[in-house]
Amino acid sequence: MPETSTEPGTARAAAYTPTDRTVPTRSKERAAYDHELVHAILDEGYVCHLGFVRDGAPVVLPTLYARVGRRLYVHGSTGSRPLRMTGGTDPGLPVCVTVTHVDGLVLARSAFHHSINYRSVVVHGVAHQVTDPDEKRAALDALVDQVVPGRSSDSRAANAKELAATAVIALDLDEVSAKLRTGGPNDDPEDLDLPHWTGVVPVTKGQGTPIPADDLAPGIRLPGYLTAR
Amino acid sequence: MPETSTEPGTARAAAYTPTDRTVPTRSKERAAYDHELVHAILDEGYVCHLGFVRDGAPVVLPTLYARVGRRLYVHGSTGSRPLRMTGGTDPGLPVCVTVTHVDGLVLARSAFHHSINYRSVVVHGVAHQVTDPDEKRAALDALVDQVVPGRSSDSRAANAKELAATAVIALDLDEVSAKLRTGGPNDDPEDLDLPHWTGVVPVTKGQGTPIPADDLAPGIRLPGYLTAR
Repeated sequence: MPETSTEPGTARAAAYTPTDRTVPTRSKERAAYDHELVHAILDEGYVCHLGFVRDGAPVVLPTLYARVGRRLYVHGSTGSRPLRMTGGTDPGLPVCVTVTHVDGLVLARSAFHHSINYRSVVVHGVAHQVTDPDEKRAALDALVDQVVPGRSSDSRAANAKELAATAVIALDLDEVSAKLRTGGPNDDPEDLDLPHWTGVVPVTKGQGTPIPADDLAPGIRLPGYLTAR
Repeated sequence: MPETSTEPGTARAAAYTPTDRTVPTRSKERAAYDHELVHAILDEGYVCHLGFVRDGAPVVLPTLYARVGRRLYVHGSTGSRPLRMTGGTDPGLPVCVTVTHVDGLVLARSAFHHSINYRSVVVHGVAHQVTDPDEKRAALDALVDQVVPGRSSDSRAANAKELAATAVIALDLDEVSAKLRTGGPNDDPEDLDLPHWTGVVPVTKGQGTPIPADDLAPGIRLPGYLTAR
């Protein structure tokens, strides 16, 4: 993928600027930086893997995130380790946030050329706690809506006590790259006559029928933002 | 979840020993350490998020893994950053490997109690390159079979050149924990009469119909390990 893309009659697409750590050491052709692609990958998910350093060792935890413009919000409790590490005088916490979607299993004739079709985004940066109350409320709404679009306006908003118990960290989208593989297997020419089946097994994801809570009042119907999915 | 589980008439189940960094600071009841549960979560997946420290900052990359007994193998190119960092005199690379499955979206009446049903495993340790040729071959087979069970014996095994170009790192399962959430929303008593739908939206994953490669010879049928999935 080129670093930026152009379409006939349009201006050069906006893109993140590659840096030393967002240019892969291998498979450089799989890297991409344009906003549209990066944001689409982020918008398709809601669980990221948040990496930080604790006592010199790496820690990777799954957590919820939301994208708002060129900023990511990551959710947590004020008691959780990464959130506490951004607190106090808040010098910020160096983090790496990664979002990955698996699209297919690539079965080549040779074991060596087996692969996965995927799309991932890696964000490097320094995360800070969100302290502005308005930004925090908006971020919490975004975190709910990232999982179920439309849900934040159909639930009770956080009260003061809940707001105080929730921490949100913000990470600007600045040093960002996408990486992706698409297409079929790439066997070596000398392997083409081998008798093994070769192709791609698509990997799918979806949502099942919503299960009402045991104590849901009988008159409350499934909302439109769930039936339309 | 208890650290270990017992069943009537059976011995106490084998479990990983909790350590300072595998006991969560919050939601301790969601942590689990028994081998059976940890291994089942690992065996259900094939993409992990590998965390390591580079120039003092965290890096999190998606990559393939396989579990063989109490050891994880993680795949890479000899040119990739984490693999090069384990090379040379090989003092080992401190890593954190995390595997996450999302099972459901938990919609509470309050925004605050929204959650995700999930199962994750976090492994801390020091990874080393696999240098023994037999172990390396077995690890590569395991990496292929973790994605598609049965596939390694129905593809051309790596030749000497391919083996040399592939790096595999090993991480012993020693400092390991699972974390999981199951069940419905946990709204506060004062919110039970709110008019919002509440329950769980199951999250599903699956595989679509295999797509043969363009150059697949007409006589080669879909193998049983793909039709049976």
